[in-house]
Amino acid sequence: MTYDVAVIGAGPGGFDAAVESARYGLKVALVEKRDLGGTCLNRGCIPTKLWLGATSAIEELRNQSRLKVASGEVAVDFAALQNRVQKHLAGTRKAMAAQLGELGIDLHQGEGNLSEPGKVLVRGEDGETVLGYKNLVIATGSRPTFFPGLEPDGDCVLDSDMFLDQKTMPASLIVVGAGFIGLEMAQVAHRFGAKITVIDAMDRVAPLEDPEVSQALGAIFKRWKWDIRLSQRVAGCATVDGRAELTLDSREKLTADKILVAVGRGPVTDNIGLRKAGVELQFGKAVVNEFLEAAPNVYAIGDANGHIQLAHAASHQAHYVAARMAGRMEGPYVPGPVPSVLYGSPEVMRVGQTETDAFLQDYDTTETSKAMLAANPMAQAHAATQGFVKVIWSAGKVVGVTAVGHDVSRLCTAATLIVAQGWREVDIHSIMFAHPSLDEALLTALRAERTRVC
Amino acid sequence: MTYDVAVIGAGPGGFDAAVESARYGLKVALVEKRDLGGTCLNRGCIPTKLWLGATSAIEELRNQSRLKVASGEVAVDFAALQNRVQKHLAGTRKAMAAQLGELGIDLHQGEGNLSEPGKVLVRGEDGETVLGYKNLVIATGSRPTFFPGLEPDGDCVLDSDMFLDQKTMPASLIVVGAGFIGLEMAQVAHRFGAKITVIDAMDRVAPLEDPEVSQALGAIFKRWKWDIRLSQRVAGCATVDGRAELTLDSREKLTADKILVAVGRGPVTDNIGLRKAGVELQFGKAVVNEFLEAAPNVYAIGDANGHIQLAHAASHQAHYVAARMAGRMEGPYVPGPVPSVLYGSPEVMRVGQTETDAFLQDYDTTETSKAMLAANPMAQAHAATQGFVKVIWSAGKVVGVTAVGHDVSRLCTAATLIVAQGWREVDIHSIMFAHPSLDEALLTALRAERTRVC
Repeated sequence: MTYDVAVIGAGPGGFDAAVESARYGLKVALVEKRDLGGTCLNRGCIPTKLWLGATSAIEELRNQSRLKVASGEVAVDFAALQNRVQKHLAGTRKAMAAQLGELGIDLHQGEGNLSEPGKVLVRGEDGETVLGYKNLVIATGSRPTFFPGLEPDGDCVLDSDMFLDQKTMPASLIVVGAGFIGLEMAQVAHRFGAKITVIDAMDRVAPLEDPEVSQALGAIFKRWKWDIRLSQRVAGCATVDGRAELTLDSREKLTADKILVAVGRGPVTDNIGLRKAGVELQFGKAVVNEFLEAAPNVYAIGDANGHIQLAHAASHQAHYVAARMAGRMEGPYVPGPVPSVLYGSPEVMRVGQTETDAFLQDYDTTETSKAMLAANPMAQAHAATQGFVKVIWSAGKVVGVTAVGHDVSRLCTAATLIVAQGWREVDIHSIMFAHPSLDEALLTALRAERTRVC
Repeated sequence: MTYDVAVIGAGPGGFDAAVESARYGLKVALVEKRDLGGTCLNRGCIPTKLWLGATSAIEELRNQSRLKVASGEVAVDFAALQNRVQKHLAGTRKAMAAQLGELGIDLHQGEGNLSEPGKVLVRGEDGETVLGYKNLVIATGSRPTFFPGLEPDGDCVLDSDMFLDQKTMPASLIVVGAGFIGLEMAQVAHRFGAKITVIDAMDRVAPLEDPEVSQALGAIFKRWKWDIRLSQRVAGCATVDGRAELTLDSREKLTADKILVAVGRGPVTDNIGLRKAGVELQFGKAVVNEFLEAAPNVYAIGDANGHIQLAHAASHQAHYVAARMAGRMEGPYVPGPVPSVLYGSPEVMRVGQTETDAFLQDYDTTETSKAMLAANPMAQAHAATQGFVKVIWSAGKVVGVTAVGHDVSRLCTAATLIVAQGWREVDIHSIMFAHPSLDEALLTALRAERTRVC
């Protein structure tokens, strides 16, 4: 049969595209070669958050213990936690499958291939099926990528998929790549008592963030006795005699129970026959126009188009594409400011432009204003006072917000609204911030004296 | 000397009124009979949040233990905690005093009395001073109130001030009054292992909230084995042989180590000579017009005018009044939607209209939409899945949001913005919500099917 919409990939982008399209009354086929939920649910955001949630008492206790207010011990049973994670994921997948059923979406398990225009060939365990489509959505996601010599061996050298799949948490861990994925997983291992080493080729942790955010994060990790090695390149990783061995370009060798390689992710756009469907690829990314079209009636969303590697960005694009396929959306895709979060404690949040972005765009009027978390009673209450909130202004309007410290992810949605609306000084008191709240640190930052960026 | 502005009371309202006025270049006197920071800092919000923060690991551990994921014990040293609270409060007061000094605000310690028009007589330890003023701000706050028979004796029958001042946490506690103050303090005592009884004359806990919120809260407390007695009136409380004894109207007697009476707070407007300054009082509240004026050039803000007993409402009013006294504000005071939060775990947040408010105002178009926290991965990660987010719509616009459950206070600022802007369906996808986040429960509630209220 010919579907109104065929979607390849059932991660956050693809699943939402399928569901939203069906809600618009379109007949939808969803093709997935592995599990419903994709990387985010099965091998990414969600299991990591379950790990962080289950271990948050450890960090809270450590903070209060430092002040001699609390004592005791919290032991998390890693095997029980992994069991719970698997149960949670299975339950979520089941709920997703039920939702597909209710909406009359046909789920085709197997690998999709664009055999000829207007057709998807699905190779599944039960053989091959050919689906006709009027509109196609490519939502094939991403997978970990590696530099030569850093490929995981599944023994002691792991990628993030393998790390999440472990049976025990290592007592010592080397993390290659100080981005959000590496730092979240390192925080979990740290809570389990692991000795942590972090290596990055850049000169700071979280190198995509504001340099002051990197500095604050680095200071906290150093206080935790993490061995942080920056501006260092890794020549190779290997399992040697049952242990992980890492060789730096300097020839220095480091060993640990495990190495986690988290140097980046790249789009999954090979072996699908995308070129046959008229899709152009650049560095593996499906090139799309302002309507997220990779070819006539062919859309590419989420990690597959490589614009922003974030689940919520994929979902937001899915919403647009579904509306467009249903004839409800004429104009181009407008993402608005995209929030990003590093979870744990400390956390990092960022939305809109960074100080550098803003300065490069308009160096005459870029200003920043800042509030330290140490002055906030909720940060004090959690004995976690390192960090700050920074507001980036351009031409008198808020164009970005970033923050680092305990629980700063809670500023994310409000900050996104404020950046989207481009608040000016006069808007600051248009709403009330609850007192006391960590959110007031954002209010304080909005009100603080501004410094010209130069 | 004659000040541009004299402020009586240095709580959140008075302190902010003084600081903001000085920033506008006005010469300011601030009169305070006790401590800088008022009830909120010294005997209210802040110490309670420090208690909740210091004990949050206990609750996190209990939640994970129930799932057999974590085990262990967290002991909070109450004496050490109280010591930390006092240090924190002293440090905050010191920082506040320094801020007054920097801004050239004269702090007069003592009781202010409006002896004659345009003058405040301050009776302090060092004698009497008379201050002349052009503008007066009454920010005298509130104090606990009691029904006859429920007066605290400072021994085993305590008000919230005394409760916060305890040297040890009682092993059993009866809380009279199931409002936010009583419930926050009961949660802390519960974390310390106290046996909790809660009594309210109304038929539900948190009786000012949405009835479904009350129901969800009550269910969680019952699971904790709290003895919750609703629709019950208390005849009297007393200390008998070193224990607290409470007698219900039904003659039934209950005993515990301590009783906390938290049945309400009333404005502090007596003994100030307010009538001499032309201020009219109704049930103790200073009556104000739409400019927050209680008399020509006399403003009353915060708990003293009794509009809303919340620190941030007082601060917001202070901001307005300072701008007005500086000649920068012509129009009437517009509070916008006022957020309120019960902290702890569960938490409650509410902003804008309740379902009932909205229905009474426009029974033709009131609708609600709802999302359960059980479907949210962050609630799952913290093993705290009871609760929900509810959106109240009127004529197709969002007019209120309320939520109950783990960490729902984090929805507060975003919800305030959304209510202030009166989002319609078309606005829902105007911003991205980060994934995963508890905030997505608000997105889900916004998108959920709406039910007509009838």
